[in-house]
Amino acid sequence: MYSRGVSTSERLIESTRELLWERGYVGTSPKAILERAGAGQGSMYHHFKGKPDLALAAIRRTAEMMRATAEAVLGGPGTPYERIAAYLLRERDVLRGCPVGRLTMDPDVITSEELRAPVDETLDWLRERLASIVREGQERGEFGPGLDAGETAATIVATVQGGYVLARASGQPAAFDAGVRGLLALLAPPATPTA
Amino acid sequence: MYSRGVSTSERLIESTRELLWERGYVGTSPKAILERAGAGQGSMYHHFKGKPDLALAAIRRTAEMMRATAEAVLGGPGTPYERIAAYLLRERDVLRGCPVGRLTMDPDVITSEELRAPVDETLDWLRERLASIVREGQERGEFGPGLDAGETAATIVATVQGGYVLARASGQPAAFDAGVRGLLALLAPPATPTA
Repeated sequence: MYSRGVSTSERLIESTRELLWERGYVGTSPKAILERAGAGQGSMYHHFKGKPDLALAAIRRTAEMMRATAEAVLGGPGTPYERIAAYLLRERDVLRGCPVGRLTMDPDVITSEELRAPVDETLDWLRERLASIVREGQERGEFGPGLDAGETAATIVATVQGGYVLARASGQPAAFDAGVRGLLALLAPPATPTA
Repeated sequence: MYSRGVSTSERLIESTRELLWERGYVGTSPKAILERAGAGQGSMYHHFKGKPDLALAAIRRTAEMMRATAEAVLGGPGTPYERIAAYLLRERDVLRGCPVGRLTMDPDVITSEELRAPVDETLDWLRERLASIVREGQERGEFGPGLDAGETAATIVATVQGGYVLARASGQPAAFDAGVRGLLALLAPPATPTA
């Protein structure tokens, strides 16, 4: 529930963001959104064309926030390896899963070009950002020169996304941590640099 | 639709398996199951106590099949690295996602101890199986002796599960392949063995 100072459209977007994260698009009814936002049906249709339109606004905001959180670590201090490690080890509420990645398992999001677009763009941006850091690390001799930076970046993003699956399956955050530590060991700069 | 020779309970389980894969548990109504199975409500309640009971039978069967498919490759010929590579590169309909892993994003599966159990057990089995192969590879000097086999195995499972997320986000199987190839490059036995 939100304080009265927050506008109705804002309450609708935030309620939708929460419900998409908790229950997914298919599992979120307009009624549930209205209840959580404390808004009436008329006010929803005043601000948005319907559930897809409201979901798009919610997904775009979640994507923007995920990007800002990732950039805060990836653009922070440290060597390329250290920044990748900081990204992988940053505190996450792993049992909740990734609010962006989980949408890919939502059939109605994936079959809608419009709803899928911000999900795709965000994961693509993340992969590109990580690839540029891997290339930077290769130039410094921190990562093997033979690695394909784009593929390594895809592995990093996949490990995080799959780590959520393992954590949620077991009901334990430790399963996420294990996958991340395994990847960091594989990525670790050699004791004797090869380049 | 199924031929008449198949029993009703069998048609119900297979229809549920398909719908869980396509639309998830939250997105699958008893009505949709009955329609796909060509069965009446009475026959469903004759064989199963309801949607959760039928879903449990469907999830258990899907889990068994996933295990058998994985074991066919992991227990096959080749060195540990080759068997892991064969597992990662085996042909998959990646845009459909993992029928077991995707259930972890289903809130009603995760909050049910009973429905979550076969998901957890299957991913756990897979991780243990991969860990034993990594250990075998370490004994042969194929993988670095410093790797934690359990964590490396978690990374392998996570990369596959997260690979589905990347593929579905982009609508392209290539994103799955990139993550897998990136992992294989990191796992690749050193040109000059370290042990």
